[in-house]
Amino acid sequence: MTTLEPTPPSAPAVDTAVAGADHAAGSSATRPGHVAPGLERLVFFSDAVFAIAITLLVLELRLPDRAGGYTDATLLDALAGLVPSLFAFGLSFVIIATFWLGHFRTFGVVVRSDSWLVGIDLVFLFFVALLPFPTSIVAREGNLPSAAILYAVFGTVASLVSAMLWIYPSRIGALISPAVPADIVRHVTYRTLVAPAIFVLSIPVALVSPVVAEACWFLTFPLQAVVSHHFGLGPTMGTAVHAPER
Amino acid sequence: MTTLEPTPPSAPAVDTAVAGADHAAGSSATRPGHVAPGLERLVFFSDAVFAIAITLLVLELRLPDRAGGYTDATLLDALAGLVPSLFAFGLSFVIIATFWLGHFRTFGVVVRSDSWLVGIDLVFLFFVALLPFPTSIVAREGNLPSAAILYAVFGTVASLVSAMLWIYPSRIGALISPAVPADIVRHVTYRTLVAPAIFVLSIPVALVSPVVAEACWFLTFPLQAVVSHHFGLGPTMGTAVHAPER
Amino acid sequence: MTTLEPTPPSAPAVDTAVAGADHAAGSSATRPGHVAPGLERLVFFSDAVFAIAITLLVLELRLPDRAGGYTDATLLDALAGLVPSLFAFGLSFVIIATFWLGHFRTFGVVVRSDSWLVGIDLVFLFFVALLPFPTSIVAREGNLPSAAILYAVFGTVASLVSAMLWIYPSRIGALISPAVPADIVRHVTYRTLVAPAIFVLSIPVALVSPVVAEACWFLTFPLQAVVSHHFGLGPTMGTAVHAPER
Amino acid sequence: MTTLEPTPPSAPAVDTAVAGADHAAGSSATRPGHVAPGLERLVFFSDAVFAIAITLLVLELRLPDRAGGYTDATLLDALAGLVPSLFAFGLSFVIIATFWLGHFRTFGVVVRSDSWLVGIDLVFLFFVALLPFPTSIVAREGNLPSAAILYAVFGTVASLVSAMLWIYPSRIGALISPAVPADIVRHVTYRTLVAPAIFVLSIPVALVSPVVAEACWFLTFPLQAVVSHHFGLGPTMGTAVHAPER
Repeated sequence: MTTLEPTPPSAPAVDTAVAGADHAAGSSATRPGHVAPGLERLVFFSDAVFAIAITLLVLELRLPDRAGGYTDATLLDALAGLVPSLFAFGLSFVIIATFWLGHFRTFGVVVRSDSWLVGIDLVFLFFVALLPFPTSIVAREGNLPSAAILYAVFGTVASLVSAMLWIYPSRIGALISPAVPADIVRHVTYRTLVAPAIFVLSIPVALVSPVVAEACWFLTFPLQAVVSHHFGLGPTMGTAVHAPER
Repeated sequence: MTTLEPTPPSAPAVDTAVAGADHAAGSSATRPGHVAPGLERLVFFSDAVFAIAITLLVLELRLPDRAGGYTDATLLDALAGLVPSLFAFGLSFVIIATFWLGHFRTFGVVVRSDSWLVGIDLVFLFFVALLPFPTSIVAREGNLPSAAILYAVFGTVASLVSAMLWIYPSRIGALISPAVPADIVRHVTYRTLVAPAIFVLSIPVALVSPVVAEACWFLTFPLQAVVSHHFGLGPTMGTAVHAPER
Repeated sequence: MTTLEPTPPSAPAVDTAVAGADHAAGSSATRPGHVAPGLERLVFFSDAVFAIAITLLVLELRLPDRAGGYTDATLLDALAGLVPSLFAFGLSFVIIATFWLGHFRTFGVVVRSDSWLVGIDLVFLFFVALLPFPTSIVAREGNLPSAAILYAVFGTVASLVSAMLWIYPSRIGALISPAVPADIVRHVTYRTLVAPAIFVLSIPVALVSPVVAEACWFLTFPLQAVVSHHFGLGPTMGTAVHAPER
Repeated sequence: MTTLEPTPPSAPAVDTAVAGADHAAGSSATRPGHVAPGLERLVFFSDAVFAIAITLLVLELRLPDRAGGYTDATLLDALAGLVPSLFAFGLSFVIIATFWLGHFRTFGVVVRSDSWLVGIDLVFLFFVALLPFPTSIVAREGNLPSAAILYAVFGTVASLVSAMLWIYPSRIGALISPAVPADIVRHVTYRTLVAPAIFVLSIPVALVSPVVAEACWFLTFPLQAVVSHHFGLGPTMGTAVHAPER
């Protein structure tokens, strides 16, 4: 997307109104959980896409049509047959919720934007909006290696873009609040790489056992916690990059 | 979700920018109906999930395909056949609207957040996003005990999580405005337990008569009003936890 | 919905924090287009439901499956067969957009809320969320009197609730800005009654000719303009109840 | 839509409260990326429609039902058969994202609204909400000239309305910040005409080769960049109409 040119951090502002606004943004946006002026609409649009993607997943959960309707016994059988779909719904809900939490934490400390950040966010939203598709494949054919590998490859790419949404503003574009300590920036970076690592490592596992690979994806959460604990991103230190904490 | 560590209320702030923001949040968030800074995005995301779940319910309401199309007589017959679906749509609209009202009242007095509150909210949104699934079962097979029991169990769990969204910030996490009197906190707690109680009690009823059980669910509203009246959570006293009242 | 008790306008505030917030709301909310504090979340949730209902209508527009796929000739035939669905999409888009504009104008002058206003808004959102259902009936069987009458009855009830959303806050609940002149309140009331009148009058028309009745519904817009012109709710005077005008 | 009368820029304000609000809007809205007061709700509603339309596209991506389920080999075959649908999803995601970026840039410099702007925005949202329909046609029959021409005609009209959303407030209605230099207004106007030009020119191409026409639509982005570069709307100068840049 060549229309999204990066702005060099030292570029002079075009006019004083713009410069004045940036100054205002810089001073007010160090409040955690408060989205900086100029970022509100990007964050809003992103949240709407997250919310719709997470809710559309339920459309895959449908009782099959049955001539003559159901009895209690056949309904229970049909519900049992929907357990893999329910598992896929839960899995993708957790993945999207995790993506949203990462987005939420990142934009709690981002104090200004540039075209690259907007571009990375739109690419990320492409994968969020697309997630119901691999989810529906796993819901229906989750015992096939090819279905699990498709989801794992998709998850790898999507979580790498999610990691870029932290790495670009914090380590490349200098778009986050200077109040965030450098070691926290580094440790949060390690944490964002947990999800891509798990998805990549699950690909060979899926060749042997798709179900084990799918179970691995839930490991993202305890492993992120281990990384948080190891680097002191715990209850107290985590707050600096944890938007809504006190 | 072990990545969501609670912050002890007495945890020292990491840096002064964060502390300053919290102070600002604490002083401004006692305005009813105004969402406290740092909570806006959580509330926004929740509202979007509520709005989508409540609107997706309509997709279940579909005229069956009919070779050669309909006449007035067959259309009226088909519409009569959709009455159970319309009933299920209305029921779940009311349930989601009630959940939204509770969420709306709660976040009108919550003045700060922590990881537990975010986590409980995401678990609650899981059930909100999933609600169209049991709704579609009741829409199609509402005269089966198993369908009514499924909905009742789902409603019990979802409304317990909804109650936790009030109990945790008000009674455990000390996240609500100190301006809310202690007796109102207690009485609102009783009110949040009306819905889980009705759903639980409807389970044995559903074994005998699914339709009576489904009718019981509408009792949530008058019974909540009785609790409100009994504890003085009426027109005047209710305003302290009733965000948009004057 | 007995849990939604009205607050008498003269009810004493429970505590000074609440009273202070109301004062702030009253002074800032006379800005047109600015949603008053305490109403933001209600308006947000309503907008999300409007946006989803208006967008879900497109799901009815689907090319029928065809064994062996389409040729240019059969695709054009199939598109011609979708014209009634496209007409229904356009009609319901216009109806929802009109409802949204009315909601937008109303909440541009509403300066505080009460339980009745929240309740009327939720009932209105019920009809907005349900609108894709009668739309799909007219899309498929719009040449049947019963389909047109169903839509007309639905439109009558929905537009009456929409009118109540103006009449209650402006003429009953005293919830709008005192800066809005009394004659404008009266004339806007007349304008809100145009849509219910057209839907009601179209019911007998639909018995004779469903297509003429459906065409009548588009008359809402020119007839609203005639009412606006007659009462001086034109370019200049209309601004007082027209949120985003200068 | 005759109810949307334009307000002459010199129309006297109805009352001082309204005039005062406009003054406030005028002074604060020169902040880039900050939506001016009175425009928030219009922008919010638009964003929700964008987000839903971009996310609903995924519903077209469905594995066909297959008696007896899939094997790895048949699943890969079925996925290969979905490549045209995936291409259509990507194409329409990019088109909607481009529309959103244009909307985002425009409303970053719009400082007040009038009825015409609201009306143009609603007409634009009609096309955004309808886009999943031509997308599904191209997804299924993208090798037919008639399908490609349908999409190209739709894209032409939609991108012309998108261009009007810039041309009206900047060159006709005087609704944008006076801080935006006149030459930038002119060059941005040229840029908004790139997309309609490409869609129009692709129509004769589609008669010969639908696939080449569809590939052309992706040229919008590099060609917009060429226009940006030619007129100096690059990293530095672009910021004045580029809301979230520093």
